[in-house]
Amino acid sequence: MTFPVDPTLLPFFEPRSIVLFGASARPTSLGFGVARNLVQSGYPGTIHFVNPKGGLLMERPLHSSLSSIPDPIDLAILLIPAKFAPQTLAACGQRGIRAAIIASGGFRETDEAGAALEAECLRIAEQYEIRVIGPNCIGLLDTHLPLDTTFLPPPGSTPGDIAFISHSGAICAAIIDWSVGQGFGFSRLVSLGNQSDVSETDMLAPIASDPHTKVVTMYMEGVKNGRSFVQQASQITPEKPIIALKVGRFASGQQAAASHTGALAGSESAFNAAFRRSGVLRAHSSEEQFDWAKALAWCPLPSGRSVAVLTNAGGPGVTAADALEAHGLNLAHLSSDTLAQMQALLPPFASLHNPIDMLASASPTDYAQCLRAVLADEAVHSVMVILPPPPMFSAGAVAKALIPVITTSDKPVVVALMGGRLIPEAAQHFRAAQVPEYPFPERAASALAVLAQRAEFLAQKPQTHVTFADVETDLVHHLLPKDEISRKGTKAQNSLREKSVPFAPSAVTKTYPLPTTIINQMLLAYGIRVPPLELANSAETAVAIVKDLGYPVALKIASPDILHKSDMGGVVLNVTSPQAIAKNFTHLMAKAQAAYPEATVHGVHIQPMIPEGQEVIVGAVQDPQFGPVVMFGSGGVEVEGLQDVAFALAPLTETDAHFLLNNTWAGKKLAGFRNIEAGDKTAVLDTLYRLGQLVADFPEIAEIEINPLRVLKNGVYALDVRATVDASR
Amino acid sequence: MTFPVDPTLLPFFEPRSIVLFGASARPTSLGFGVARNLVQSGYPGTIHFVNPKGGLLMERPLHSSLSSIPDPIDLAILLIPAKFAPQTLAACGQRGIRAAIIASGGFRETDEAGAALEAECLRIAEQYEIRVIGPNCIGLLDTHLPLDTTFLPPPGSTPGDIAFISHSGAICAAIIDWSVGQGFGFSRLVSLGNQSDVSETDMLAPIASDPHTKVVTMYMEGVKNGRSFVQQASQITPEKPIIALKVGRFASGQQAAASHTGALAGSESAFNAAFRRSGVLRAHSSEEQFDWAKALAWCPLPSGRSVAVLTNAGGPGVTAADALEAHGLNLAHLSSDTLAQMQALLPPFASLHNPIDMLASASPTDYAQCLRAVLADEAVHSVMVILPPPPMFSAGAVAKALIPVITTSDKPVVVALMGGRLIPEAAQHFRAAQVPEYPFPERAASALAVLAQRAEFLAQKPQTHVTFADVETDLVHHLLPKDEISRKGTKAQNSLREKSVPFAPSAVTKTYPLPTTIINQMLLAYGIRVPPLELANSAETAVAIVKDLGYPVALKIASPDILHKSDMGGVVLNVTSPQAIAKNFTHLMAKAQAAYPEATVHGVHIQPMIPEGQEVIVGAVQDPQFGPVVMFGSGGVEVEGLQDVAFALAPLTETDAHFLLNNTWAGKKLAGFRNIEAGDKTAVLDTLYRLGQLVADFPEIAEIEINPLRVLKNGVYALDVRATVDASR
Repeated sequence: MTFPVDPTLLPFFEPRSIVLFGASARPTSLGFGVARNLVQSGYPGTIHFVNPKGGLLMERPLHSSLSSIPDPIDLAILLIPAKFAPQTLAACGQRGIRAAIIASGGFRETDEAGAALEAECLRIAEQYEIRVIGPNCIGLLDTHLPLDTTFLPPPGSTPGDIAFISHSGAICAAIIDWSVGQGFGFSRLVSLGNQSDVSETDMLAPIASDPHTKVVTMYMEGVKNGRSFVQQASQITPEKPIIALKVGRFASGQQAAASHTGALAGSESAFNAAFRRSGVLRAHSSEEQFDWAKALAWCPLPSGRSVAVLTNAGGPGVTAADALEAHGLNLAHLSSDTLAQMQALLPPFASLHNPIDMLASASPTDYAQCLRAVLADEAVHSVMVILPPPPMFSAGAVAKALIPVITTSDKPVVVALMGGRLIPEAAQHFRAAQVPEYPFPERAASALAVLAQRAEFLAQKPQTHVTFADVETDLVHHLLPKDEISRKGTKAQNSLREKSVPFAPSAVTKTYPLPTTIINQMLLAYGIRVPPLELANSAETAVAIVKDLGYPVALKIASPDILHKSDMGGVVLNVTSPQAIAKNFTHLMAKAQAAYPEATVHGVHIQPMIPEGQEVIVGAVQDPQFGPVVMFGSGGVEVEGLQDVAFALAPLTETDAHFLLNNTWAGKKLAGFRNIEAGDKTAVLDTLYRLGQLVADFPEIAEIEINPLRVLKNGVYALDVRATVDASR
Repeated sequence: MTFPVDPTLLPFFEPRSIVLFGASARPTSLGFGVARNLVQSGYPGTIHFVNPKGGLLMERPLHSSLSSIPDPIDLAILLIPAKFAPQTLAACGQRGIRAAIIASGGFRETDEAGAALEAECLRIAEQYEIRVIGPNCIGLLDTHLPLDTTFLPPPGSTPGDIAFISHSGAICAAIIDWSVGQGFGFSRLVSLGNQSDVSETDMLAPIASDPHTKVVTMYMEGVKNGRSFVQQASQITPEKPIIALKVGRFASGQQAAASHTGALAGSESAFNAAFRRSGVLRAHSSEEQFDWAKALAWCPLPSGRSVAVLTNAGGPGVTAADALEAHGLNLAHLSSDTLAQMQALLPPFASLHNPIDMLASASPTDYAQCLRAVLADEAVHSVMVILPPPPMFSAGAVAKALIPVITTSDKPVVVALMGGRLIPEAAQHFRAAQVPEYPFPERAASALAVLAQRAEFLAQKPQTHVTFADVETDLVHHLLPKDEISRKGTKAQNSLREKSVPFAPSAVTKTYPLPTTIINQMLLAYGIRVPPLELANSAETAVAIVKDLGYPVALKIASPDILHKSDMGGVVLNVTSPQAIAKNFTHLMAKAQAAYPEATVHGVHIQPMIPEGQEVIVGAVQDPQFGPVVMFGSGGVEVEGLQDVAFALAPLTETDAHFLLNNTWAGKKLAGFRNIEAGDKTAVLDTLYRLGQLVADFPEIAEIEINPLRVLKNGVYALDVRATVDASR
């Protein structure tokens, strides 16, 4: 492993001995369950039980306290009423124990008293440098050490090569129980509970560094520190895949947004951007998550997206072809040599062209030989074998014939093993040989797609942030307002926030809009071109200004309080005479007064008209979890309706910037489309990088948006801008 | 049942006696398999076996021919070499048998000789009025008669209430074998094979009229006659739900398209439009199909989309909430009365607000009493109960406590039964009580969503086509060109097409473009407003024309061969002087000559400028399966890039027309958005109905497109139009 592992977390997985507080001889108690699992798991270290009542449990004494237990003790498990947790933790600390799992509930998840107890535990843990998993969790298991600190009813997980990190103990319980019937097992598994200390991010490296772990899976309800997660995960994914199932998509409240970017950016956009940046695969259901995990743990990676489908019937082949194309894979064009080989093997009416239908008569030997032939074909990068119960042979016999071909190939092969009562033997063979099998071609196709995606990710060159040295950071510092009073107010807010349950939507923070002139100066300081903008506070000044600028011009109402100017008719384009200037000035001022009587209106902004071109939106917001996020998409007032937008973490990498362009119609269209002329793509990319750098440098910019960014043949102009500042930062 | 059932198809499901040709005593033969299944299924009628070799099979004589078998014989099953099928079918016909299943392969699916044999069988079947299922199929089963004509290895399907109609025999085999482990059974099942006679559409009514069938499921690789399918399915879905899994999405080749509508309309758009029109639910995988089927077969329908989630842990509740929202359902707001009831039942830290987390300690009684409380809440329309293995109780005990509450409620309850080894007893109880259970909350949510969708479909008023009497059909007849030579050519093409395999992409047909003036007259004849359009063949005529029309005007190159005029700069807007008219005329003619040297250019079209407004696209194409299909969406050159379009079958119903508007940004925006003024929605609807009526009346119109349709405050204008005619119709 090239990534570092925090040594303070290792005792959780390499304890020489364990003490369980709350061990109980009462068989229905959780304390009995943990004791039973510790002993029955075959844990090779020493196990000590503590229970003030004394007695014997599983042939071991129940100690009345720590003092009668000999050294060393590396890990404590607390399954005792919450009110006793602080003193027990302190006793552990005094004894030199540096790792504890608080499995008990009754803490922050219940009420204020529970939250206070949790805070007290955390304080003690910090004092004694104890790392704590929990409280309110089911602990961890390692099937290879082996070790099982959970209270789940036996039998537990079978040994395997998939690791699982979970924010929910119930999900752990259900998934462990489910996994056995699905034919896979876990290497390590951690239930994190309230995460008072150890978080999902902390656990990534210790879990991934386990040599038995081939894939890390995560059930996430949020993230404790978004940027730190991205950093940790980015170090691991080049070596081992991480698959996250992130829930709570709809749970988070919507913050009031002052820009299109703010309205469109949700925590899900930020999560997707973060997962993409760090190479984390995002699954959309538990079934998909472990379908992928099996394939990634057990298969070699393909060198491309061309798939051969080998089947004994037409229908499943058509289903597979559909599913493959839906997942962005394609059917391999087989070489004439491969076709000839199969023709020699198969009956005359077999359909040799991919999907290859060997017909219902296909024998175990036919399956094996045809598979060998297609695997030898250079055009084939991976294979889906479909096995509905063969009418003449047993599925088990087919499996036995296929397995040696599959396990000796350097190309991935997955199996769609369709049926129920006629396939258990085949399933058993495939699972023993670590050949992933799925109940339907659709799920097998999804597994093949994730293998291709993983291969492409690993082939990618390392990503670095694109930033520029020619930016004037000091100037922007100077431009941004300082507001000590608001700052103080929000510190109080922040401390309140920390008391709430994890991953609660952040409180609405106090933001205020920046004047256009300031925004323009900020953009110029970061090398983003804005058209000259002059402020006129009377019709006369307006006419005088245009005398210098030259006709035609655009007039825009100048008010920091009116964010969507064109919505209220606050923009007039192509004004060509002094009379029109004067008339429109008066008209705009009256309109603003009528529409927003309480707005501060500084006058009217005057800009020279900029040549026609494509219009895009470029914006950025501060995500409460992941910090600055850049948005790109189709501009204009329709951006929210069309939702042709994409997001990436700031500062941007080259991969990110190209993702933004390649995944939006606005980006694709920059190359030109029909009678729409091509725009300066390089200048758009440059703007994206620079705006990303600006918001990364200045987290106090809550939202900033250029809409439209006018894209000319050469260069771009930020035609209309808005931004708000967060007084709390 | 209020829908008619073709009486000639009834012998397949109510035969008094059956004869099997090709019955065989050799246990590995398919002929033995069918004989075994016929006998072991418990079929109450008489079974006769025919095999020229004679002998005994399953205590019955093997007759050497039909002649020694007594009357009546209602159904023949042929499992004999293809070459003997015609004479055997003829013998059946002579004997008065009117229903046959040809299970054997070796027909159209193999080669030309096979296709000839199939045609010969069809000819004989028509001669003797025999209805034929197959060839190349596995026949049918009815678990209630009971009857099993398949050769599938036992045990077959358990009796159930879900019917299955399939284009693939292998899918039938796999699904039957799979269904038992999934806890559901089939009522009737038909494998259709080559569909030489009986098609999926023919089977709908006989299958749906079965009193044991509560839901009809279909595996479809295409449709034999699209409009007839829509008509049949529309009669059935008000009484019983139909769920189709349609594959072959990507298999069909793309036809060369002359319009945006043609490029965007694929057979999938037409299938979706057809399914929507006929109330058929479209599933996207086999698992989804039967997840839905179980719920629809076993649950009452909800009266709304508000769901209560009852769980014993947080994680699965969050997962459920996400999945419900993703499926367009919402979490019910429980009444204070319900909350109070649950508070009295549950421990103090239980989370009563939906999702209701009863905590891990929840007992079978807690589950049952809380479920009773939420079901009594008027705000709750349906319930998802989540049951991960409870740490203190058995899942089976929880199931037993829940079932009486669920089965006596008139609201639907589905269960997410999570786990593997700890839940089989619970699964068994739920299945016996016909309570749908799913392995994860995501799949349970999908099932609840389909119940809501079904309830909404049934609440919808019956749909009728919207057509107008004020259209001038005769005028359009007169306008459309007659082309006898092309017509002949394409008849030959059509007959060729019939010889190919079912559902092959249709051959490219010969189409040619119509002149703009003709299209405009057609639209006017159907009450769609077009701006006046005058043709100028010289600069002088142009100037003279504008003298009458008045300035400003738009100039457009007039050529039937140039379809996307603005792409080549063939449109000039806002021309305001005679000098500009003359200059632009010359310029446009030169441009067209340069860009399309072989195009016929009639001159330049002149139109008065139409006021600004929203622009949409309205188009229609003839789908090879489903006939005329109307498209609506965002207009302009970007339509293909944005893909903001929706499709419906023509002529349109009110539901269809509103679907088109509600499911596109172009449609939603007609109500006005920010500074975009509202447009005349009624006039847009009127245009959609009228264009639908036009293409339904004139199938020779292959493609027609109005792009843009300019939408004013009052009324609309078809600003630019194009159309092609199919010479073969």
